[in-house]
Amino acid sequence: MTPSTNQVYPVIWHNNSVSLIDQTRLPNEYTFVAIHRSEDMAQAIKTMIVRGAPAIGIAAAYGLYLGAREIETSDRQEFLTHLEKVAQLLRSTRPTAVNLFWAIGRMLKTAHESLGTVAEIKEILFETAEAINHEDLQTCQMIGDHGLTVLPSTPEKLTLLTHCNAGALATAGYGTALGVVRSAWRENRLARVFADETRPRLQGAKLTTWECVQEGIPVTLITDNMAAHCMQQGLIHAVVVGADRIAANGDTANKIGTYSVAIAAKAHNIPFFVAAPLSTVDFELSDGSQIPIEERNPEEIYQVGDTILTPSGVEFYNPAFDVTPAELITAIITEKGAFAPGNLAKYQLQQYVS
Amino acid sequence: MTPSTNQVYPVIWHNNSVSLIDQTRLPNEYTFVAIHRSEDMAQAIKTMIVRGAPAIGIAAAYGLYLGAREIETSDRQEFLTHLEKVAQLLRSTRPTAVNLFWAIGRMLKTAHESLGTVAEIKEILFETAEAINHEDLQTCQMIGDHGLTVLPSTPEKLTLLTHCNAGALATAGYGTALGVVRSAWRENRLARVFADETRPRLQGAKLTTWECVQEGIPVTLITDNMAAHCMQQGLIHAVVVGADRIAANGDTANKIGTYSVAIAAKAHNIPFFVAAPLSTVDFELSDGSQIPIEERNPEEIYQVGDTILTPSGVEFYNPAFDVTPAELITAIITEKGAFAPGNLAKYQLQQYVS
Repeated sequence: MTPSTNQVYPVIWHNNSVSLIDQTRLPNEYTFVAIHRSEDMAQAIKTMIVRGAPAIGIAAAYGLYLGAREIETSDRQEFLTHLEKVAQLLRSTRPTAVNLFWAIGRMLKTAHESLGTVAEIKEILFETAEAINHEDLQTCQMIGDHGLTVLPSTPEKLTLLTHCNAGALATAGYGTALGVVRSAWRENRLARVFADETRPRLQGAKLTTWECVQEGIPVTLITDNMAAHCMQQGLIHAVVVGADRIAANGDTANKIGTYSVAIAAKAHNIPFFVAAPLSTVDFELSDGSQIPIEERNPEEIYQVGDTILTPSGVEFYNPAFDVTPAELITAIITEKGAFAPGNLAKYQLQQYVS
Repeated sequence: MTPSTNQVYPVIWHNNSVSLIDQTRLPNEYTFVAIHRSEDMAQAIKTMIVRGAPAIGIAAAYGLYLGAREIETSDRQEFLTHLEKVAQLLRSTRPTAVNLFWAIGRMLKTAHESLGTVAEIKEILFETAEAINHEDLQTCQMIGDHGLTVLPSTPEKLTLLTHCNAGALATAGYGTALGVVRSAWRENRLARVFADETRPRLQGAKLTTWECVQEGIPVTLITDNMAAHCMQQGLIHAVVVGADRIAANGDTANKIGTYSVAIAAKAHNIPFFVAAPLSTVDFELSDGSQIPIEERNPEEIYQVGDTILTPSGVEFYNPAFDVTPAELITAIITEKGAFAPGNLAKYQLQQYVS
């Protein structure tokens, strides 16, 4: 996959290493970081150089390959044992997004099922990482297009609110929530995006606005606490967000603040959509209470740039995600179509039956 | 009124001028600005050196006196005409908080009703400004104590969430919402305060935490979008906020984000209290849709300290307040006791009858 002029690909294979857009430097600098080793990939995921559930999965898949190619043995079993250690390192980076575990699981399965030599397993691991990346891009385009079938049919041009960044930067490209936005824009059904700034890390202010500006999509930035007021004023026709992990019943973990937006949307009878690949669904969890919620450094709250916001003596709570109960979600938009949250499990069942 | 060591008085008369705590420099610097002229007071209100509905009213009252003492005439009518111009300047500073208009109205009424010389009217204007300041401090203490009667009786020690800063800094001292917090702390009924940081101007992060730390009240800072998650986790027992203007039906304008918190509180069955002096109630407005909402500079959103958060090409919406409908408010706590929002108008009626 090579970068084109306009489109954004946060994780690409380039010059025998992984090239990541450094998302901690956007929107001021659009730069790339070359990752050669699995340890560096783990660090890049932890520090959010790469972030967003699907993009984390893709990065981890490549990261596993980077670790695999450094394992110096021709003994298959020894290789697989070492590979599991690499997997463990990558799994430990961020607990909430299930795509991380899904991608690593798929890579490991591929390795275990391969009957070839270690060199051949390494090659197939590379091809699998590339496949995960390519498939995610297609998946996002399908999610975007399926989104069109559930968006409100009036008014002709919609104003969509989104939270955090579930955009090209959070995926292989095109985005999940912003995939729906892009498809709506392409079909001339979008008036404007309202973007929550998304404290504490400001992914809305820094990344979502940047993606929109790149493509000329009109975007209005608000602080998170303005979303309910905007709904009350009739400015928002629908909400579209991404997901980090979806339980079997449809309860959805996503960036902190998503739950607050969902409650407000319900109170104003505004449809609330989750856009995510099916790999985000964790069918092993019956409901959202079982999703582990990552807590991050309080510095993210008390410091912005060089500015310290608070006096000393204050305590902090910094959960990175929250769980939106299924009953607040109008539909979950996947690459296989849009489902009422309660129908996800039925869909899975059908897959097994068919 | 002279500052004591521990307590915070944001507006005091000192050395023949008004001494304002410069709230734009907190929490890093605790400094005072001396205001000698009404024009400087108008500027201080606009730029939020002094902020918070009751404190704005007090500052405007002193500001009117500062203007009055500069009017060089002994002709009563000429004096009153000039005084109206000073009032107009002060009224134009911030549109939402009704206390500003209430305090100026009370000052003008005093001037008009006084039968003395211009010198005597000037003297009585000074005394009225001082009275407004003193009365507000007493009012806040009564609000705090009335708050105790409506707070949940269990658990023994409560965790209260507040938004923005309705504290000593926003009033003559002691605070309205933080008045309730202070009274609960004094009576050993408070476990902890959760403070919303309150974007874009971060009054929660900068001012509410500072006030709590000054008095040793345990305070946990969260970003605004975490409040609903904290409620879902069972961390919050009640919400207490201030008000900038309350319509006759109980609809309440307060700092942007209040509405969002109120919706979340309702969804979790958590009591939501507004603490405000009766001077905050605008009985001329039948409901909240008639309250003018100030829009402020977008710079407040896109810049924190020296850091620019967004790329160019983004649009902004920066309403400084929102309106919480009466049905989301458990009670409005005033210096005359706590009222169900729908009973405010009845209370006013009783005042006229008795």
